[in-house]
Amino acid sequence: MSALYYLAPAAGALALLFAYILIRRIIAIDPGNEKMREIAAAINSGAMAFLRRQYRTLIIFIITLIVVFCIVGFVTSGPNSMKPQTAIAFAIGAFCSILAGNIGMRVATKANVRTANAAYTSGLNKALNIAFSGGAVMGMSVVGLGLLGLGVVLAFFIEDNSIVNGFALGASSVALFGRVGGGIYTKAADVGADLVGKVEAGIPEDDPRNPAVIADNVGDNVGDVAGMGSDLFESYVGSIIAAIALGAGFSIGAHGEGMLAPVLIAAIGVIASIIGVFFVSAKEGGDPQKSLNRGTLVATVLTIAGSLAVSILILPATFKAGHNVYTSLGVFFATLAGLLVGFSIGKITEYYTSADYKPVKNIAQACETGTATNIISGIATGMGSTAIPILLIAAGIFVSHKCAGLYGIALAAVGMLSTTGMVVAVDAYGPISDNSGGIAEMSKLPHSVREITDKLDSVGNTTAAIGKGFAIGSAALTALALFTAYTQAVGIETINLLDPKVVIGLFLGGMLPFLFSSMTMQSVGRAAGYMIEEVRRQFREIPGLMKGEGKPDYAKCVDISAKAALSEMVLPSLMAVLVPLVIGLMPGLGKECLAGLLAGVLVSGFLLAVFMANSGGAWDNAKKYIEEGHHGGKGSPAHAAAVNGDTVGDPFKDTSGPSLNILIKLMTIIALVFAPLF
Amino acid sequence: MSALYYLAPAAGALALLFAYILIRRIIAIDPGNEKMREIAAAINSGAMAFLRRQYRTLIIFIITLIVVFCIVGFVTSGPNSMKPQTAIAFAIGAFCSILAGNIGMRVATKANVRTANAAYTSGLNKALNIAFSGGAVMGMSVVGLGLLGLGVVLAFFIEDNSIVNGFALGASSVALFGRVGGGIYTKAADVGADLVGKVEAGIPEDDPRNPAVIADNVGDNVGDVAGMGSDLFESYVGSIIAAIALGAGFSIGAHGEGMLAPVLIAAIGVIASIIGVFFVSAKEGGDPQKSLNRGTLVATVLTIAGSLAVSILILPATFKAGHNVYTSLGVFFATLAGLLVGFSIGKITEYYTSADYKPVKNIAQACETGTATNIISGIATGMGSTAIPILLIAAGIFVSHKCAGLYGIALAAVGMLSTTGMVVAVDAYGPISDNSGGIAEMSKLPHSVREITDKLDSVGNTTAAIGKGFAIGSAALTALALFTAYTQAVGIETINLLDPKVVIGLFLGGMLPFLFSSMTMQSVGRAAGYMIEEVRRQFREIPGLMKGEGKPDYAKCVDISAKAALSEMVLPSLMAVLVPLVIGLMPGLGKECLAGLLAGVLVSGFLLAVFMANSGGAWDNAKKYIEEGHHGGKGSPAHAAAVNGDTVGDPFKDTSGPSLNILIKLMTIIALVFAPLF
Repeated sequence: MSALYYLAPAAGALALLFAYILIRRIIAIDPGNEKMREIAAAINSGAMAFLRRQYRTLIIFIITLIVVFCIVGFVTSGPNSMKPQTAIAFAIGAFCSILAGNIGMRVATKANVRTANAAYTSGLNKALNIAFSGGAVMGMSVVGLGLLGLGVVLAFFIEDNSIVNGFALGASSVALFGRVGGGIYTKAADVGADLVGKVEAGIPEDDPRNPAVIADNVGDNVGDVAGMGSDLFESYVGSIIAAIALGAGFSIGAHGEGMLAPVLIAAIGVIASIIGVFFVSAKEGGDPQKSLNRGTLVATVLTIAGSLAVSILILPATFKAGHNVYTSLGVFFATLAGLLVGFSIGKITEYYTSADYKPVKNIAQACETGTATNIISGIATGMGSTAIPILLIAAGIFVSHKCAGLYGIALAAVGMLSTTGMVVAVDAYGPISDNSGGIAEMSKLPHSVREITDKLDSVGNTTAAIGKGFAIGSAALTALALFTAYTQAVGIETINLLDPKVVIGLFLGGMLPFLFSSMTMQSVGRAAGYMIEEVRRQFREIPGLMKGEGKPDYAKCVDISAKAALSEMVLPSLMAVLVPLVIGLMPGLGKECLAGLLAGVLVSGFLLAVFMANSGGAWDNAKKYIEEGHHGGKGSPAHAAAVNGDTVGDPFKDTSGPSLNILIKLMTIIALVFAPLF
Repeated sequence: MSALYYLAPAAGALALLFAYILIRRIIAIDPGNEKMREIAAAINSGAMAFLRRQYRTLIIFIITLIVVFCIVGFVTSGPNSMKPQTAIAFAIGAFCSILAGNIGMRVATKANVRTANAAYTSGLNKALNIAFSGGAVMGMSVVGLGLLGLGVVLAFFIEDNSIVNGFALGASSVALFGRVGGGIYTKAADVGADLVGKVEAGIPEDDPRNPAVIADNVGDNVGDVAGMGSDLFESYVGSIIAAIALGAGFSIGAHGEGMLAPVLIAAIGVIASIIGVFFVSAKEGGDPQKSLNRGTLVATVLTIAGSLAVSILILPATFKAGHNVYTSLGVFFATLAGLLVGFSIGKITEYYTSADYKPVKNIAQACETGTATNIISGIATGMGSTAIPILLIAAGIFVSHKCAGLYGIALAAVGMLSTTGMVVAVDAYGPISDNSGGIAEMSKLPHSVREITDKLDSVGNTTAAIGKGFAIGSAALTALALFTAYTQAVGIETINLLDPKVVIGLFLGGMLPFLFSSMTMQSVGRAAGYMIEEVRRQFREIPGLMKGEGKPDYAKCVDISAKAALSEMVLPSLMAVLVPLVIGLMPGLGKECLAGLLAGVLVSGFLLAVFMANSGGAWDNAKKYIEEGHHGGKGSPAHAAAVNGDTVGDPFKDTSGPSLNILIKLMTIIALVFAPLF
């Protein structure tokens, strides 16, 4: 193995060191008065309680898979058989992702209260700085542990791709729990808190008397910090692993340069992201969005320059991949194409979900004629919003393949994800700001504080939308790269759409995201039901709760919806894991059918994910737009219609939509890891 | 050409003769009192006004395509070039479908009032008999003109498949207008009538003072008689043509027996359907559903027996198709598989959309917690309802391909559609019963009459659901058969999913149904807007209208929403027609990309169509279930939530969903007809 490989774990270690420095700085900051600290402690301990419950289920899942790997590994034999060592890579991958999420959640639930206090005592810039630093810890943990863990696995197993793939499956398993379990949890808590609190008890949002209020605040962290982080962790390592596999498969470069290049590009992206973080700061009265954009821009430009250097310096000037000859510069352009597509998908997501543009304004307008027209308008907007992202992905595939063949497609995914550190930092900033607003409200800080946190939060909504678009786009490109790696692993040169096995696979695969979304949406409803019962029980049984004299049992609410969410995720998860195995092993169907299935899941999963995320985001912001005073403002009939739309959108954008990212990737990785069996 | 081919146009002529007899019998029946005749005349003239306006646009579309065929035909040359004669086949196909729709609409708008009067004067059996006879006229017209027209085209052009394909495109063009234009019209009229009538003016449904009431009744005929008829006409001839093309392509039988078999199976299906019609009749107090089922069963059993005879007597005992050898009995089993899949998809649609089963009951339950939970529950149900139809289609593909290769898949489509005469008859019975109820209401017939028409109507709802499922399933299988014929026509042996062109096509194709649905949903909103303005204007400007003294201008309402619907359908239709041409002709993409695109459209179109149709149907029946007195009944908060769901479901199930059937088939047929250019 070339010594240059060690640059990757080194960059990972650097990112972790940087995260450690950020953590020290955040913790040193004053967390505010006693009330604030009390609330923050409740959120923090709720978040940890959620994680503990999640780990208990996760560990069973992980151990089961490890046992499967060992058994299959020892039972099968021959050069193409599955290696028991896959279990080691798998365990490392899972551990790294769990650790990244744990660090991120811990810090986010400490940064939130400090952001609120900074908004109180020092103003916008300081508050922005803390919230973003908190996000940056998550971002750095994701890429740091990603590269460090992958570096370790590569150091031992680089000669055997099938083992390395285990690392991706480990990441994927954690993402499954983060996105599906976490997604169900966060919306069950949200719906439960709203329905009993606002509707039944008639108390405002973020009211500390509501027993579900902490669970709701925990949910923001679960969904947008841990969930998003694990999702991008999976894409990040998945894209690199796919590129390594294809670099090896096409034997690019005499000394494995085709395998080295993606690793180095990732390492450069990490360093560029660290530098980018330093460029995020806002003057008093300035625009936080601009400073976030500045940081992202710096990171992106540096990554582009670094990718150019890597392509030219590392790769041979011309090389053969498949039937054609490509150039090292072509690899650079493929990487660049991926970066641009990721950026553009984020931007177009903003267009469809921000109240600054026509789509959301039209939806708000449709609220004037009632709920039904609002729903139809939102669904039509979401469905229509799939067009441009698809065109972008198609253009990305076209360009990157023209430039560097199938290897180019994998490099486009690596390019798109190279700035993941920065993307996650910006994204995780959102829920921290959101939480800080909640804490300010609950601890009755002056209105001026809420103004600052609202400003931070509204930027957070935009970054969340962009992050969601990015997550879906990167999931699609990563899955495509993994899909290509799968076909190489099982040794199929053509997947013929005239072969009925492939067509059957395509039909079945196309259906799975619909079924999966159906399941996760219904899960939210059921899990919310348990939460509602518990809240009602507490209002009934705890004396003086409504008067603010009794103390609600926050932890119980967290625990109940965590438990419900985790049991609800069993069925959809089993489907995602077992279907590829069953199809791949079934006589008469087999690996070609599985290839068709993966293609179907990818296409329809991507479309549904974009549709659901954008419909949900647009409804949310249409409601906020009306609350700002348009179409009659709060309390008007239009507002009532908008609230219904927002409620429908909640599981769309925070549970079912993002869960599809995982479905797409997980099924492909399962196929890739178990490829030796097919 | 074998003389046996003439059996097909002969069976077609027989069906038309039978239709003529039915028409004579219907017209001879007493249309009731003056008030009833007046209302029926208004609906009839409204329907004719709609058709006239539609023809004006349709003729431009048809002439344009004829000119294109002639120009392309004369300009290109060589053995594979496009023939100008394609224009002739195209014109005949379009004419036959138009004529079938025209006859069906004329008779349906005469049968409705006679059904109402029979319910008044003679009771259930007579009323059922008339309503079903009206539907049977549509059914017989569809298969009669389908087989007769196709027979004429085959007589002249059987040697040249590319010309025969023109016939399918003619049918497809009319279906485009019937389903997309008609679908937008029917919901614009429905929403317009409801919103201004029930909500603003506070008058009940089917109140003759509402200027939009006739437009609404016309809409039922436009959507469920003409629209459904043109859709199944297209599937019917499309499946036969695809089977002929594959029979020719694989050179099955020394004397073209592979081309003859599907034609004969279709002919037998027609005769079986005629016989089946005689078995539909109910005793007083009996169950109309049972008698409809009896007729369907007879037609199906006879068709199965006939298919067995055709397979064994006509086809060679063993034959080669592609790389494998199959038996004549295999062809029979492929046909049987198609029939069973069509039947099962219909049944499963009933399960998901009828209030007798759990899904609709759960949705009604979800109405108790408000609109948002109702919407989520309906969407989850619709998405989940795609699973079994996909499994059925996959099973159908698997079995029919095992039994007779790609030819078997086409025969499965022919088998599924062989009883189209009966299916359309049962389906068109629904809107006639629905209309008869409206007429009874408007002409203030006694309540007992309404009880009979309600009984007929409620059966109509079930048959409509089954018919919708059947239409989608047959569209998918027909499109798959046409897709196979396309790949033969352009001479591609493999469509490789590892070729980025194919992947790009798959992504783009998968997206188009989402974009198309988005467009059609928004079209309904805009077209309804024009209607609402016109109704408001009439209430404002016509003196004494609210008091029942002024006479509303029904025709104007029909005309305005017809005009709006037809202009709204331009953009989605152009997309459907032009995209395959652009992709097929674009350098760097071409016919492989187009193949991927068609596969993508087929899979995601089928899924979205099932999802939207079933969500819409389920919401509709959940509302009716609540109106029967469950969950608080009419006027309860649950009912209000259910009404919202029903309104969202309207464009789902009657516009966007069914329009996708056409998108799937039309794009494939365009590709097939213009294949010589690619």
